[in-house]
Amino acid sequence: MKATFMFGARDVRVEDVADPVIQEPSDAVVRVVRACVCGSDLHPYRSMPPAPDGVPMGHELIGVVEEVGGSVASVRPGDFVIAPFAFQDNTCVFCREGVQTACLHGGWYGTPETGGLQAELARIPLADGSLVRVPDIDPDTAEESMLASLLTLSDVYLTGYHGAHMGEAGPGRTVTVVGDGAVGLSAVLASRRLGAERIILMGRHRERTDLGIEFGATDVVPQRGPEGIAAVMDLTGGEGSHVVIEAVGHMPAYEQAYGVVRPGGIISRVGVPQYEDAPIGFGSLFGKNARLAGGPAPVRAYIEDAIPQVLDGSINPGRVFDVEVGLDETPAAYEAMNERRALKVMVRP
Amino acid sequence: MKATFMFGARDVRVEDVADPVIQEPSDAVVRVVRACVCGSDLHPYRSMPPAPDGVPMGHELIGVVEEVGGSVASVRPGDFVIAPFAFQDNTCVFCREGVQTACLHGGWYGTPETGGLQAELARIPLADGSLVRVPDIDPDTAEESMLASLLTLSDVYLTGYHGAHMGEAGPGRTVTVVGDGAVGLSAVLASRRLGAERIILMGRHRERTDLGIEFGATDVVPQRGPEGIAAVMDLTGGEGSHVVIEAVGHMPAYEQAYGVVRPGGIISRVGVPQYEDAPIGFGSLFGKNARLAGGPAPVRAYIEDAIPQVLDGSINPGRVFDVEVGLDETPAAYEAMNERRALKVMVRP
Repeated sequence: MKATFMFGARDVRVEDVADPVIQEPSDAVVRVVRACVCGSDLHPYRSMPPAPDGVPMGHELIGVVEEVGGSVASVRPGDFVIAPFAFQDNTCVFCREGVQTACLHGGWYGTPETGGLQAELARIPLADGSLVRVPDIDPDTAEESMLASLLTLSDVYLTGYHGAHMGEAGPGRTVTVVGDGAVGLSAVLASRRLGAERIILMGRHRERTDLGIEFGATDVVPQRGPEGIAAVMDLTGGEGSHVVIEAVGHMPAYEQAYGVVRPGGIISRVGVPQYEDAPIGFGSLFGKNARLAGGPAPVRAYIEDAIPQVLDGSINPGRVFDVEVGLDETPAAYEAMNERRALKVMVRP
Repeated sequence: MKATFMFGARDVRVEDVADPVIQEPSDAVVRVVRACVCGSDLHPYRSMPPAPDGVPMGHELIGVVEEVGGSVASVRPGDFVIAPFAFQDNTCVFCREGVQTACLHGGWYGTPETGGLQAELARIPLADGSLVRVPDIDPDTAEESMLASLLTLSDVYLTGYHGAHMGEAGPGRTVTVVGDGAVGLSAVLASRRLGAERIILMGRHRERTDLGIEFGATDVVPQRGPEGIAAVMDLTGGEGSHVVIEAVGHMPAYEQAYGVVRPGGIISRVGVPQYEDAPIGFGSLFGKNARLAGGPAPVRAYIEDAIPQVLDGSINPGRVFDVEVGLDETPAAYEAMNERRALKVMVRP
């Protein structure tokens, strides 16, 4: 089969490799219907040291189950499924507490052992916990927009939702979203779903912020740095934002976040931090009792509620996809997202 | 009157100064019945650069109102009152949201303008928001233990309570308290009040941890660093603690905290951080969706619920006081607390 690998910064290639096979009784093999490139894939795309063997890429898919191991009970060949971007048993103590990305037996795609999902086929470990069946949808006849929205439940929409949920977005709470990438726009949509009336989107790419407005943003702040902070403070009557969803992962975005968070408010991070140390002392978080939340989204915790919302058309998060490519063109998809010519690229094997 | 000033590290003096007077119609002047030295006073005691004019010290008191300004409506001369450690109007938007330490018109004691509370008399700005009357108690005849417990509602007990509250301590949640100072012990007591059954106290001063056990700690971990983390992980079956209350303020205590917090858990800080930057990236907080909360306790938000608990004997947080001195001996109180010969010193002017 064909699968995508990264060999270093700006070096993505599609290679012919052996088809994945069932290795454990709890595995499934899935034929990929749609995969995509994630904003988090751009971090290694910009900075990864050379890797002669290549790192398998991709952690989002919708697909059709081809084969299951002997212990798999919840899906069977032919089922149309979504794979949350991390695998998990969905039964361990942390899964039961709703933190499936910390599953005791789970892990991440994109390792030599599990492979990546920007491929024709994928081995899914712990299939009972890691695949969620979508009822009554035939991927061969479903509308493209429906497939796109279902694909976002693998990661991007529910990562935005995680940001909104952990930030406690809701009625009466002003939300500021830092970043107009696909996760940021998803966070806008999720915040609106959770009842926030005032949603400030910090971003300066007009076509993206326009989609943010359609998703529910009430204000757009294109400025960054101290000017961006001043603009949000102005919009909030000098008080700051109850909820700040940081959907970038770089230090300047975090600095924006603590600059605009209101006393007692919550910064909820869903951009993967590209830093380890950051200000959290009296001058940033502590003095104003600002809180910090977020992490890798436990998509599995949210997906069963989200699927019906997509199926009945209440939400249409698939609109974040603006380019579609074949699997052979995946390297160009990285390039387009890295250069911001594409917001989010769908890959059709 | 006599009042306490710090002139530099390890240089505390009691000076004769002019009595405070009403400056604003919203002021009150209070005769101090009991004050005390705070663990946070020890940070400048160890490191403050020389200050030729002296910095007025103290932010905790119980007392009797001597005089009120023309606009003060909620207290009158003769009332027995507690002063939360920050002053606030208790009416601004942040006060209404329960973050009184961020009051738009409030501030801190211990400045040349407002003076300190380790004194015979104190000017209390915004008295309607900053003094809470204790009904039916005559400080001249009340038991010492009752006065001690009421004094803890000025800061230390309710700071511990803030840590437990913001950490969401409660039934079914393991709590780890880092630090066996008076705030840490208060956090143990508050966590027990909030229903936590398993409370691990990290501290190595036997007489303090013994009081922690009386307050509700179920386990004591004297080790620090990696050994301390390993001990807490062992006690929690390798899972970590749902709630970690960091009641010290130094970096090693924060490192303990993120080392033992469980995926999805909360680190709640009530020790004033003596650092600005600290680890919060993938390897510390983000990867396991650990949350960070805490800050200067909005004592005013909690005090009205706490007073009846003290009056009816449900809680006895005043047990953290183990030494009492007269005002002239306040310098020795700092020394004793700094050398850990005293847990917390009460000052009787």
